[in-house]
Amino acid sequence: MMSTLTHLGSNGEANMVDVGSKAETERTAIAEGLVLMRPETLSIIMEGNAKKGDVIATARIAGIMAAKKTHELIPLCHPLLLNKVSVEIEADPALPGLRVTGLARVSGKTGVEMEALTAVSVACLTVYDMAKAVDRSMTITSVRLVEKSGGKSGDFRAGDQ
Amino acid sequence: MMSTLTHLGSNGEANMVDVGSKAETERTAIAEGLVLMRPETLSIIMEGNAKKGDVIATARIAGIMAAKKTHELIPLCHPLLLNKVSVEIEADPALPGLRVTGLARVSGKTGVEMEALTAVSVACLTVYDMAKAVDRSMTITSVRLVEKSGGKSGDFRAGDQ
Amino acid sequence: MMSTLTHLGSNGEANMVDVGSKAETERTAIAEGLVLMRPETLSIIMEGNAKKGDVIATARIAGIMAAKKTHELIPLCHPLLLNKVSVEIEADPALPGLRVTGLARVSGKTGVEMEALTAVSVACLTVYDMAKAVDRSMTITSVRLVEKSGGKSGDFRAGDQ
Amino acid sequence: MMSTLTHLGSNGEANMVDVGSKAETERTAIAEGLVLMRPETLSIIMEGNAKKGDVIATARIAGIMAAKKTHELIPLCHPLLLNKVSVEIEADPALPGLRVTGLARVSGKTGVEMEALTAVSVACLTVYDMAKAVDRSMTITSVRLVEKSGGKSGDFRAGDQ
Amino acid sequence: MMSTLTHLGSNGEANMVDVGSKAETERTAIAEGLVLMRPETLSIIMEGNAKKGDVIATARIAGIMAAKKTHELIPLCHPLLLNKVSVEIEADPALPGLRVTGLARVSGKTGVEMEALTAVSVACLTVYDMAKAVDRSMTITSVRLVEKSGGKSGDFRAGDQ
Amino acid sequence: MMSTLTHLGSNGEANMVDVGSKAETERTAIAEGLVLMRPETLSIIMEGNAKKGDVIATARIAGIMAAKKTHELIPLCHPLLLNKVSVEIEADPALPGLRVTGLARVSGKTGVEMEALTAVSVACLTVYDMAKAVDRSMTITSVRLVEKSGGKSGDFRAGDQ
Repeated sequence: MMSTLTHLGSNGEANMVDVGSKAETERTAIAEGLVLMRPETLSIIMEGNAKKGDVIATARIAGIMAAKKTHELIPLCHPLLLNKVSVEIEADPALPGLRVTGLARVSGKTGVEMEALTAVSVACLTVYDMAKAVDRSMTITSVRLVEKSGGKSGDFRAGDQ
Repeated sequence: MMSTLTHLGSNGEANMVDVGSKAETERTAIAEGLVLMRPETLSIIMEGNAKKGDVIATARIAGIMAAKKTHELIPLCHPLLLNKVSVEIEADPALPGLRVTGLARVSGKTGVEMEALTAVSVACLTVYDMAKAVDRSMTITSVRLVEKSGGKSGDFRAGDQ
Repeated sequence: MMSTLTHLGSNGEANMVDVGSKAETERTAIAEGLVLMRPETLSIIMEGNAKKGDVIATARIAGIMAAKKTHELIPLCHPLLLNKVSVEIEADPALPGLRVTGLARVSGKTGVEMEALTAVSVACLTVYDMAKAVDRSMTITSVRLVEKSGGKSGDFRAGDQ
Repeated sequence: MMSTLTHLGSNGEANMVDVGSKAETERTAIAEGLVLMRPETLSIIMEGNAKKGDVIATARIAGIMAAKKTHELIPLCHPLLLNKVSVEIEADPALPGLRVTGLARVSGKTGVEMEALTAVSVACLTVYDMAKAVDRSMTITSVRLVEKSGGKSGDFRAGDQ
Repeated sequence: MMSTLTHLGSNGEANMVDVGSKAETERTAIAEGLVLMRPETLSIIMEGNAKKGDVIATARIAGIMAAKKTHELIPLCHPLLLNKVSVEIEADPALPGLRVTGLARVSGKTGVEMEALTAVSVACLTVYDMAKAVDRSMTITSVRLVEKSGGKSGDFRAGDQ
Repeated sequence: MMSTLTHLGSNGEANMVDVGSKAETERTAIAEGLVLMRPETLSIIMEGNAKKGDVIATARIAGIMAAKKTHELIPLCHPLLLNKVSVEIEADPALPGLRVTGLARVSGKTGVEMEALTAVSVACLTVYDMAKAVDRSMTITSVRLVEKSGGKSGDFRAGDQ
């Protein structure tokens, strides 16, 4: 396997990759995650949501704001001028739980996978925070990159490999 | 079910809970999460680790620093004077992947579940970031509270309920 | 007038006041501000609010999160362990516009006026941001302390002086 | 009225606008705000200023630094590479009080109104903080966009509409 | 030598020390640093200072604000409720350059050496930034702890050992 | 001497320089600093490092992360889209102590001297923090710009002047 961990220098120490010679292209990434919970917890959240929308709305905003902090949280991430971040949260009674999708887009020299994944993770954590008084056993799971486009490494779609 | 979402006001709008009347006790929380990956990815990370420790070391530090940012990330979390944060990361070839454990402790009026969960989530995201050049299909999963102690709501241990 | 600017040292240079000898008491502050706008702008926001609540919900959350950043924004403010922050936003067709109220509470050595005022200011700015596409002439006005309690300097109620 | 709230998605949920297709042009915004106070308070500030300049200097720096934090404070603002931020503060005995003007400039895809308004708001809050020991009844008022240029929505000048 | 690096766990990995069992005492630390420069640079700064005070005032404020960010910058530092931070900057023509002194004070479970040292370092960096257009060869030097008091490890005074 | 302090306005007040008309070129800066310590302290750090690398690894990561925060710490610095930051730390028994080198690179309108210097300063502070339990008399010294290239003001190399 020829792949190398691009963040590691020749002696193995962690470093930001130099993106100076990369092309500035439009790059998009979509990530997803789930918050599994008891059916009653989902009902409470969604009824609250039906009335006021606040658990969902708060988690969405937290996810969007977190995407803008990605380079502060992930040590070797580059700062980016994000063109767009969006977070969608849907109830899925079959889980039962919430399905969180995050999209990040940039015209830049490096990808936005981490921004999309960070948005999803923090939105999920916010759901946990707001509902933990009724259910401490919620689990955040299946946080992963769904697809990305743009950039030299080519497009990616989960399940294609 | 009598439980209520304590962050929601009487009209359903999101609000920080008033913790002024809560007792200041020692509170500890332990959370856990997994990063699933291909066996080759795990080998690359751990060999790098054997030589320099940097993927693991970087992820640990990112998790610790993120715990201190929890109240900036999660809209309704209170700022806290954390006494301790630690993050442990172990390889588990049976997954295959990494098992991330985070502990947060405070002498305060509110619990540290979110700090432990945030430490774990950001450590997992950092692993993803540092190894994504070799494996974009890694998945962060099973992020959950393992146990907590201290505080009025009593102790919690995952699986006890 | 014997009053002195407590942030200025004996030579006039800016400094944080030493609060080490102040008593740790429960302190509350309430601040208020208005966003004046055209009646059509208010209608658009409130109809949006009737359906989804998002301008109001976003501004409320932004205000709460900003209160936690007060000591990062205001150079000589002390960091505080806030017990509670809340932000309420009401339509007032007589203005026409929105009335924003912020409350901050702490058990600490220094007051929370700045936290309440910062919550109000940032909530107002967020309303401006979200509605500026339809009305750039909105004005944020009458941002002031309504009342405070706790602490050596005594209680304050606007208009009492 | 055809105007729409550009931050709201088709279902009304809050979202960052996608600025990827906007032109990168030079954009400037100027905002203004007032801090009304008792005449004695103004004298104390300005005499301090005559000697050391520190209330004014501190508020100016706080405003400049806050402009750089706009995208962290306002949930749906884009991060920007600001070319310039400046804050001017003048005494106006006729108010009596201080007149705060903020300018922000960028070569970018989205406007800098929020950066100019945030600079003004935080400079005003800093004045309040530094002088509140002598006057808790100060009021921050008339915070508004004075003019903007650049960008698709065209130029704006307060009072032109 | 029996001393151990208290931030390292039994396996050598970095960790925050648990300060939960430490006593909450009043702790003070004073640090110092120098910015060496050409005599003309010092004159320009001090004449500017004589007139407007802004290089010195800006550096002082930057140092105070940085002290409040210490736990965000230094990975294993604990968040603290600082009672006071002050920064003094004096010209010393004999260097020639500026002498920067920082003081931090807390009633807490852990010392404030890092807060005092961070205040000094960032004040020095700010001087460099503001004067670098006239002198890129300035050097920041002799940044060290001058004294500390409070806490279990006892008092420290530089040169006593 | 014709040089002027570019951050000061015509009346001496501090301001960000307008970089809107500057060319966007590739700019690199390298800075250096030393942490002087007792020989035993250096041995403890390097033996720890030989086993786990953690003092050095933690300080390197702290320096990289701090470079990304430069514009938050230094009041008049512009935000930048850094292409690369790296920090190297070497033991030098002749000092005795550690030699810290920081590199920052950008394709932008303004230089990265402050980013390189901030990376070095915070890496040095982190070394101090992690080893202070064994040696409070460590000194951070000789923090300076080693070289820079790109930009209108031309290249700089320490010692050339």
